[in-house]
Amino acid sequence: MGAISEDDLISRFFAPIAGPGALGLKDDAACLTPPPGCDLILTKDALVAGVHFFPDDPPEAIARKALRVNLSDLAAKGADPLGFLLALALPLGVETGWIEAFARGLGADAARWGAPLLGGDTVKTPGPAMVSLTALGAVPTGQMVPRTGVRAGDLIFVSGTIGDSALGLQARLAPSRFAALAPGARDHLLARYLDPQPRLALAHVLRHHASAGMDVSDGLVGDLTKMLKASGVSGAIRLHDAPLSPAARQAIALEPALFETAMTGGDDYELLIAVEPRNATVLQEDARAVGAPLTLIGEALAGTGPPRFMGLDGSDVVFARGSFSHF
Amino acid sequence: MGAISEDDLISRFFAPIAGPGALGLKDDAACLTPPPGCDLILTKDALVAGVHFFPDDPPEAIARKALRVNLSDLAAKGADPLGFLLALALPLGVETGWIEAFARGLGADAARWGAPLLGGDTVKTPGPAMVSLTALGAVPTGQMVPRTGVRAGDLIFVSGTIGDSALGLQARLAPSRFAALAPGARDHLLARYLDPQPRLALAHVLRHHASAGMDVSDGLVGDLTKMLKASGVSGAIRLHDAPLSPAARQAIALEPALFETAMTGGDDYELLIAVEPRNATVLQEDARAVGAPLTLIGEALAGTGPPRFMGLDGSDVVFARGSFSHF
Repeated sequence: MGAISEDDLISRFFAPIAGPGALGLKDDAACLTPPPGCDLILTKDALVAGVHFFPDDPPEAIARKALRVNLSDLAAKGADPLGFLLALALPLGVETGWIEAFARGLGADAARWGAPLLGGDTVKTPGPAMVSLTALGAVPTGQMVPRTGVRAGDLIFVSGTIGDSALGLQARLAPSRFAALAPGARDHLLARYLDPQPRLALAHVLRHHASAGMDVSDGLVGDLTKMLKASGVSGAIRLHDAPLSPAARQAIALEPALFETAMTGGDDYELLIAVEPRNATVLQEDARAVGAPLTLIGEALAGTGPPRFMGLDGSDVVFARGSFSHF
Repeated sequence: MGAISEDDLISRFFAPIAGPGALGLKDDAACLTPPPGCDLILTKDALVAGVHFFPDDPPEAIARKALRVNLSDLAAKGADPLGFLLALALPLGVETGWIEAFARGLGADAARWGAPLLGGDTVKTPGPAMVSLTALGAVPTGQMVPRTGVRAGDLIFVSGTIGDSALGLQARLAPSRFAALAPGARDHLLARYLDPQPRLALAHVLRHHASAGMDVSDGLVGDLTKMLKASGVSGAIRLHDAPLSPAARQAIALEPALFETAMTGGDDYELLIAVEPRNATVLQEDARAVGAPLTLIGEALAGTGPPRFMGLDGSDVVFARGSFSHF
């Protein structure tokens, strides 16, 4: 880090991107007047270099990912972001330029998503860089969209496309497997891994229509299994209806085993949404209206067993591992 | 970590110690209805093994310290705790017993201080263990005690005793320097380092009477300099009036150079309090009534220069380094 002190680092790089509640990052704490009539939604996801991102990823992208994976959790709960706190552990010898770029990327993304930096802590570590971020959001009192609210008979939708990010990670780890893929398609997959897109546009849509919501961070199959189990129901899911991007389709056509990667691989940050059938049309219309169309992939069923995941011919699909674990 | 999954770890060790807002740690996020008419006070301090604690410290003590250094920030702002979120980065190969003990220590301390676990994240790391904790507190709207509120003429008080923790750290690092110290005194210093005591009992006292507050985490001299600078004032501080425990007095009598360690060493987690002279008596009485007596150490003065720190004969005391940096 050279000669830069923690105080200098905060005043030079982080104070300029902080929100008003941060008190210029000069106090022990931040002060936030919660919006009246609201519940606070709180989420905390930590990312470790070499585990959740590549140490040589651009610092701006690491900052964006740390913020966005947390904003994705807020979106899944139907919450509007209020801001976030950041703990940043910096490896010994990190360059000042790295920190500056990280802060710049974070500030731009905070402004983009309306989630100001409120406070935090910077520490040094003899280990890898780590970003631990706590995001705060708000929903009208009692309106948080729970993970546990799926009822038998609910339809299950998913936003966006599934698997791009997991395929992008594979394209980073084993580029040769993707050598036959069109460069534009490979770039799409790589970008989805590097720069997740939190579905904050859907937060209000979920709040108004969904019985349950969850973001897909550990793979569609595993996360949907979790959501149904947490709700005390089972389900029947048509995996061949899971939305795939043209790039993912191309990659899977070239190597069919990648279908499993796409369905179980994680880091999608799309939303799983359960909805009563009578609300399904308006849910879809509202989602389309905010530019985030949904795809119907199955339904929740009474029962406590794990959901069935079915292939094109209606037969059960069983994967070696249901979900990706960053842990 | 052996065979334990992140889900198992959460349900076995952390769900039992979580508060109601944590939703059983089964959701993407926690939900908290903020107390009406209050501002939220938010603080985030991260601790890294080998930097902020010894890797072989008891896991219960590491958990307590991570919680308490954050509660100390709430106390300095006059806030009552609402709860906290935890990110825990676990080194590869950590024993399940370590995690269990950490969670047990954390749960006991959360109950003791009335600060329930609301949510968080556990990740693995190829580096050292790291605990990143975000604490939430509440004050009546507009009543946060700022760091920046010191006015010229304010009296400066400090709670408890100063330097025990810094001396305790030295006793860990260089036991031979403390060989002549009575074992009871050495144990006192070691305990103050291992188990900080957040001054939450003083939160209400500060809120009612103080013009400014800050907790002493990086040394009395450095932190008081920061508080006065942030408030745009200077000051005159009588360092020989800084409260010392009998153990610290004994250690300093044996090795006078340790006075500097005590005044600049950090990890005290006592409170610095600025108060208008007309409120000083009631501040002291109220502090005594909650079992946390205060000591007058100086006053704030008009001016923008650094404060004077004076020794017994009234001459200026200048230390080689003003404050301890964990960074």
